[in-house]
Amino acid sequence: MHYPEPIAKLIEGFMKLPGIGPKTASRLAFFVLSMKEDDVLDLAKALVNAKRGLTYCSACHNITDIDPCRICQDKGRDRSVICVVQDPKDVIAMERTKEYAGLYHVLHGAISPMDGVGPEDLTITDLIKRLEDEQIEELILATNPTIEGEATAMYISRLVKPSGLRVTRIAHGLPVGGDLEYADEVTLSKALEGRREL
Amino acid sequence: MHYPEPIAKLIEGFMKLPGIGPKTASRLAFFVLSMKEDDVLDLAKALVNAKRGLTYCSACHNITDIDPCRICQDKGRDRSVICVVQDPKDVIAMERTKEYAGLYHVLHGAISPMDGVGPEDLTITDLIKRLEDEQIEELILATNPTIEGEATAMYISRLVKPSGLRVTRIAHGLPVGGDLEYADEVTLSKALEGRREL
Repeated sequence: MHYPEPIAKLIEGFMKLPGIGPKTASRLAFFVLSMKEDDVLDLAKALVNAKRGLTYCSACHNITDIDPCRICQDKGRDRSVICVVQDPKDVIAMERTKEYAGLYHVLHGAISPMDGVGPEDLTITDLIKRLEDEQIEELILATNPTIEGEATAMYISRLVKPSGLRVTRIAHGLPVGGDLEYADEVTLSKALEGRREL
Repeated sequence: MHYPEPIAKLIEGFMKLPGIGPKTASRLAFFVLSMKEDDVLDLAKALVNAKRGLTYCSACHNITDIDPCRICQDKGRDRSVICVVQDPKDVIAMERTKEYAGLYHVLHGAISPMDGVGPEDLTITDLIKRLEDEQIEELILATNPTIEGEATAMYISRLVKPSGLRVTRIAHGLPVGGDLEYADEVTLSKALEGRREL
């Protein structure tokens, strides 16, 4: 026996989402049956609206419902600094620190020859254009501390530095609350390398 | 900074599903943005259809898109046996064994005084009525091997046995592929108790 058609379709739909296998999908689907109809309709509407109502900001390529995005429009922000990140999610993470008040540039990935992602697949050309057109004083490279992220930071840095712009990279080191004992060698040697006078 | 409204709504919607916290919800939401529009529409439709298109079978209380359900309608099945399970998902699990060809009765829960679930909250009255109306020869109690499931099986058994009907309980023991070393005491003693001549 198979599931009744409507629930089979829903399970199939859930299984297209990342990290959701057949078991989780059927658990979610059965939960949906027990939800209030209004909540289900809200979720369905939210799905469609998120897909249809969102675009990428034409300036910084962050995800947004208005173009240019709220951050690019915000007159209160420091327009002389651009922080380069890989993903829209990284913008949210940076914003949560409440320490950064400059602009962003979202690359939508990192250079990864293994996955066939080259510089031309990212929004690097647009970044260079922004650096020419806008009055930028500092470029903060906040790509992930992975091989791909490092390579991307290095690539952009080499491209931009000749113009004399200040290019910085976010610090590597021990995460706050972390334990020296469990830190891997690379992180620890980066932490040592980046030590500062107290 | 907050997420743009459409994505915030979607994250909120995903968070209502079981086992999905803020991090998973935002991962799913961002994935939805990268999905093809048709796939998103399909998922939204599947949600609404599952909620609207499914009811419970008036005979066995299993989840179904037609009433009575396909199993209750199936003339090829053994109509003298009813297997009592807690959830519609348990019906699917039983069907997967391909060993059982009788009917089902879904209780939609188990007796659990701690959670305020009494026998009157389950479909036990309907089950008794079926036993009176239909020509049933055996009642298989396949509720979960938990305290609540056992209590429910015991309760139904006491209610039904005086009528002379054959009432059986599915076996407890070591799961196939399991390891004696890691089996808990209760399972192991149940396995011992239920040992059979070879």
